[in-house]
Amino acid sequence: MTTNNPMQIGVVGLGRMGENIVRRLMRDGHRCVVFDMNLDAIKTLEKEGATGSSSVADLVTKLSKPRALWVMVPSGDVTGKVIEEVASSMERGDMIIDGGNSYYRDDMARATSLSEKGIHLVDCGTSGGVWGIDRGYCLMIGGESKIVEHLEPIFSTIAPGIDSAPRTPGRKGKADTEEHGFLHCGSNGAGHFVKMVHNGIEYGMMAAFAEGFNILVNANAGKRKSESDAETAPMEQPQFYQFDIDTTAVAEVWRRGSVIESWLLDLTATALFNSPDLAGYAGRVSDSGEGRWTSLAAIEEGVPSPVLTTALYSRFASRDLDDFANKVLSAMRKGFGGHDEKKG
Amino acid sequence: MTTNNPMQIGVVGLGRMGENIVRRLMRDGHRCVVFDMNLDAIKTLEKEGATGSSSVADLVTKLSKPRALWVMVPSGDVTGKVIEEVASSMERGDMIIDGGNSYYRDDMARATSLSEKGIHLVDCGTSGGVWGIDRGYCLMIGGESKIVEHLEPIFSTIAPGIDSAPRTPGRKGKADTEEHGFLHCGSNGAGHFVKMVHNGIEYGMMAAFAEGFNILVNANAGKRKSESDAETAPMEQPQFYQFDIDTTAVAEVWRRGSVIESWLLDLTATALFNSPDLAGYAGRVSDSGEGRWTSLAAIEEGVPSPVLTTALYSRFASRDLDDFANKVLSAMRKGFGGHDEKKG
Amino acid sequence: MTTNNPMQIGVVGLGRMGENIVRRLMRDGHRCVVFDMNLDAIKTLEKEGATGSSSVADLVTKLSKPRALWVMVPSGDVTGKVIEEVASSMERGDMIIDGGNSYYRDDMARATSLSEKGIHLVDCGTSGGVWGIDRGYCLMIGGESKIVEHLEPIFSTIAPGIDSAPRTPGRKGKADTEEHGFLHCGSNGAGHFVKMVHNGIEYGMMAAFAEGFNILVNANAGKRKSESDAETAPMEQPQFYQFDIDTTAVAEVWRRGSVIESWLLDLTATALFNSPDLAGYAGRVSDSGEGRWTSLAAIEEGVPSPVLTTALYSRFASRDLDDFANKVLSAMRKGFGGHDEKKG
Amino acid sequence: MTTNNPMQIGVVGLGRMGENIVRRLMRDGHRCVVFDMNLDAIKTLEKEGATGSSSVADLVTKLSKPRALWVMVPSGDVTGKVIEEVASSMERGDMIIDGGNSYYRDDMARATSLSEKGIHLVDCGTSGGVWGIDRGYCLMIGGESKIVEHLEPIFSTIAPGIDSAPRTPGRKGKADTEEHGFLHCGSNGAGHFVKMVHNGIEYGMMAAFAEGFNILVNANAGKRKSESDAETAPMEQPQFYQFDIDTTAVAEVWRRGSVIESWLLDLTATALFNSPDLAGYAGRVSDSGEGRWTSLAAIEEGVPSPVLTTALYSRFASRDLDDFANKVLSAMRKGFGGHDEKKG
Repeated sequence: MTTNNPMQIGVVGLGRMGENIVRRLMRDGHRCVVFDMNLDAIKTLEKEGATGSSSVADLVTKLSKPRALWVMVPSGDVTGKVIEEVASSMERGDMIIDGGNSYYRDDMARATSLSEKGIHLVDCGTSGGVWGIDRGYCLMIGGESKIVEHLEPIFSTIAPGIDSAPRTPGRKGKADTEEHGFLHCGSNGAGHFVKMVHNGIEYGMMAAFAEGFNILVNANAGKRKSESDAETAPMEQPQFYQFDIDTTAVAEVWRRGSVIESWLLDLTATALFNSPDLAGYAGRVSDSGEGRWTSLAAIEEGVPSPVLTTALYSRFASRDLDDFANKVLSAMRKGFGGHDEKKG
Repeated sequence: MTTNNPMQIGVVGLGRMGENIVRRLMRDGHRCVVFDMNLDAIKTLEKEGATGSSSVADLVTKLSKPRALWVMVPSGDVTGKVIEEVASSMERGDMIIDGGNSYYRDDMARATSLSEKGIHLVDCGTSGGVWGIDRGYCLMIGGESKIVEHLEPIFSTIAPGIDSAPRTPGRKGKADTEEHGFLHCGSNGAGHFVKMVHNGIEYGMMAAFAEGFNILVNANAGKRKSESDAETAPMEQPQFYQFDIDTTAVAEVWRRGSVIESWLLDLTATALFNSPDLAGYAGRVSDSGEGRWTSLAAIEEGVPSPVLTTALYSRFASRDLDDFANKVLSAMRKGFGGHDEKKG
Repeated sequence: MTTNNPMQIGVVGLGRMGENIVRRLMRDGHRCVVFDMNLDAIKTLEKEGATGSSSVADLVTKLSKPRALWVMVPSGDVTGKVIEEVASSMERGDMIIDGGNSYYRDDMARATSLSEKGIHLVDCGTSGGVWGIDRGYCLMIGGESKIVEHLEPIFSTIAPGIDSAPRTPGRKGKADTEEHGFLHCGSNGAGHFVKMVHNGIEYGMMAAFAEGFNILVNANAGKRKSESDAETAPMEQPQFYQFDIDTTAVAEVWRRGSVIESWLLDLTATALFNSPDLAGYAGRVSDSGEGRWTSLAAIEEGVPSPVLTTALYSRFASRDLDDFANKVLSAMRKGFGGHDEKKG
Repeated sequence: MTTNNPMQIGVVGLGRMGENIVRRLMRDGHRCVVFDMNLDAIKTLEKEGATGSSSVADLVTKLSKPRALWVMVPSGDVTGKVIEEVASSMERGDMIIDGGNSYYRDDMARATSLSEKGIHLVDCGTSGGVWGIDRGYCLMIGGESKIVEHLEPIFSTIAPGIDSAPRTPGRKGKADTEEHGFLHCGSNGAGHFVKMVHNGIEYGMMAAFAEGFNILVNANAGKRKSESDAETAPMEQPQFYQFDIDTTAVAEVWRRGSVIESWLLDLTATALFNSPDLAGYAGRVSDSGEGRWTSLAAIEEGVPSPVLTTALYSRFASRDLDDFANKVLSAMRKGFGGHDEKKG
């Protein structure tokens, strides 16, 4: 499938996601001018048909007006600096798409600031991870309607397309853009707001699976010699916890026909197949902003999100950020009951 | 596709799931003898090729030995009574499959009790809901190996089959049964144990989506005139909550390419498409046992499952089971601060 | 007991807490000049020895330099406006104490702004509720050391004093100010930061009691006819839930010798004694900023506070702010299982 | 103060709590016959006026009928065995008080079993920790009314007494037993049921303090060089987290006049005074049964207790029982985003 409206677009940031977005765009007939601090990344894409550039400023000069430039830098900090640099070479009417993991508030501020120069910012939450080159990327877009419409050929190419999922029952006639996998969510910031909540949900779903598999792995807890003393409760009914569950097989069987079918389950099944005890992982789970921002939004809106926030906090705890809290608990127990801590 | 090993099987319980399981079995060449308290349900299936019966006892006499009989009664209470009734007509070597939502501990007890008569119980957690007739059902099975093997043609037909999901990367050669959508999880009870955890995860995933959509719906909270007085905090930064998000469109766009692709999301997209404000629902969310049992298991195993249990408690709270707790809070606030409750 | 260092101080805001702070100050020999929008409040205190004033500006003129003025307005919004008004009449070297429930960040900004005029802001988190006139108020103070020291006679009078609690074992010699019930916590904002966390803890403790009493009240759940069908799990072991617990008596007995002795328990005991079923309360629990801010701080610091945040969310849910989330859950259940909502 | 009704009572189990209960009884004029596996414990109390014994059977022979014997063994397992041993020497009409941390269900079963021999069991939840000798113990009692009344002189002595807390406003006239610190909560099991919920609340309160102090300790998080890359969100507003809070002083100041005054806070203040960084603790927090049972009860009753259960789960997580769950999360992140785990 080749698009009917090939466009030219600049792309700054050729990491895991950026380089695959360029490839997906070129496959579909768009012309890409690219830049990255890593020269090898530029060369690789030049061989595949992209136009390289020697700097952000050079890239901007190679674009025809009105210019469209996609910034695909993962970190929020660096994104801000790159957008400033890009904008300093641009002119009234040009367009910048922020495809990284920016905080939607930063996009709101940047859009206001850039609008003074007549430059248009579009924030585009981009989900799909390392698999997007084949699956396509789910795009959640914020910005001015005319600008978003102008860029539709780009979004349409990067998105997975209508065939990537069965049509929702009841939907008829011409498909809306969301059925192709991209959506204009609202004014500046709305795209990254929706992407933020998406990742918040992702944290919750991931935690649900993680906790569930942990319960399965411990279904044989009744077999272990239980420590029974004044400090630790012995297991009341060990006869009910005598199962050695093959979690790899369980992840696989759930992929077919169950209510919890999902891409996250597919990934878990793969990971467990490769290493049933996940021995290569230490279990220190990072968090990358959106989970925190989602909980901040819930609190500021005044709506409860105990599952999403608990999932976030479990990640904090996995990195021992509850250390002092736990010491306080042990100190209290010592204080009222004379309980010494048990050795691990 | 027709199975190479057609079997005869009795089915007691022809509700939403039972009748579709019978249809799926007959489509694949198995012969079904059926019974339900609802005579219409029997007649309907007779027209489609099943053999009806006038009672459980009558059904049992119509089966050839060793008999195989699937009990598909949703509620745990009734399941126990039906299994007892079935067993009272059966003989040594016969087999009963409990396909309902039984507590795995009940299956363990029943299996022990039935084994004294030489009757074999198999517990079979069955996921798929009202859609299973086409999607197939994910089957999580507990029981003696020989019995489970003997019944494999039945399980194989009811399960979705290998084509229902792309093969997990790395898996090669002959597919394991879990790749067909059914799994012998272990001894008696193991099937319903795994199904229990499955539903626990389902609760967590559902809550993650529910909370996320609630945050999206309230993304315009900054537009509402905020009540600001000593009792309620005013919104600090209303400028960040000015979005009117089309949640129906968001649910749809997330179905393509995003990390949170899942069947539960598909269902949510359908529900929101049919009614964007879900006006037909009061938001009193039932829970049907497995969620509770999963949390009980986590606690008894001594492993944390804060997300799954929080999801369960949110359902309790949706039914106002936190009523007295909330009154205690208001009473305390009155006690120390003289705060009267605000009107809703 | 009368202080050795009587001071003159202005107080703006004569609500529940403000008027009692004035009384406590006058009892101890300080001279108070007061103002409130409510003229009756001024008159009442004039009769008790305070000097009234006709406006904020008038109050300021009645103070000798360097002026010290306590602003005791509950709401954060209004506090900001009052402080601005006060400051507009003040001069270099004057001091304003913000004793309300301000967000510590607002105090940081105000302090910076006022410092340009040479006016000193002190933020003073004030706990004690309606009982402080007798118990004294716990004071958590942020600001410049010299200013806080200058105001010590005021803080010392308002605080409960050393005799209000038994000395912590191990503490010897001259008591630190914290043993008198007031503490200079750090630079501007530190006082309200500590007060914020105090209230966050308060939310968690209150929820712990509320949930516990709810479990006690439902200790007779096994006596109720259980609804048992496919939607709701019946109680497995009703024989263990046959107790009619007298929660009023339980709250009382816990006040003596138990590990959970606390002032919040004392208040609960009083409330339950007055109305064992708390029938006067609807159970819609307000939240007043600090609970939200505490959770925001935890998230931004990256430390888990699942209990404090869950307590906050329970308050949101008590006001039905989880409404749309619950509808999404019911809609999903309908989607996969055909479950209609049960009537409440 | 010496009781008007001195009684004779046997005590088996002379650990931290048992020996102090004996002392408290003897101080008030009761006669105690004691036994423990640790002969030194017996000798010590003999010197203080108790009658020693050489075995449980010997102890029983030394009691006059109807015998009253207090079993004070911490662990539930051992309690059961000791009660059986005691009962085997007893006769119709004798009374056993189970003062340990038994599961209330075990007491219900034991009471039924003992009643067949005419022996009466009383379950007595006992709170007060190592401090009870001076503070007295809060007693929550379950059993037959006549038996509980007969033993009232014992309970009255062990309990803290009416002067241990100010009278609840509104209470007038003769004090109920709960105002003395002991309460007949209901039939067999009711005492330990109430004690169970007491400890559940204790877990929640402890977690509230622990989380709050952790937030205070990290109030300087903005000073640390933040790691900012694609995996970890940098701190948005480090200027708001620049406080070095003296948590020892904060714990102390909160003891006077604040809403969160409590015995647990007193203990925390002591612990922090002795070691501000709590360096002697590893932060592996034990749980001893009641916290688990409280959450099990909440789930079985169908009432939400998210704070209490979350507090329990935090203890599990402090002992790394979330290990496999965290590995699953890291494996998923690797799967969809190519994220390698960060080093700790």
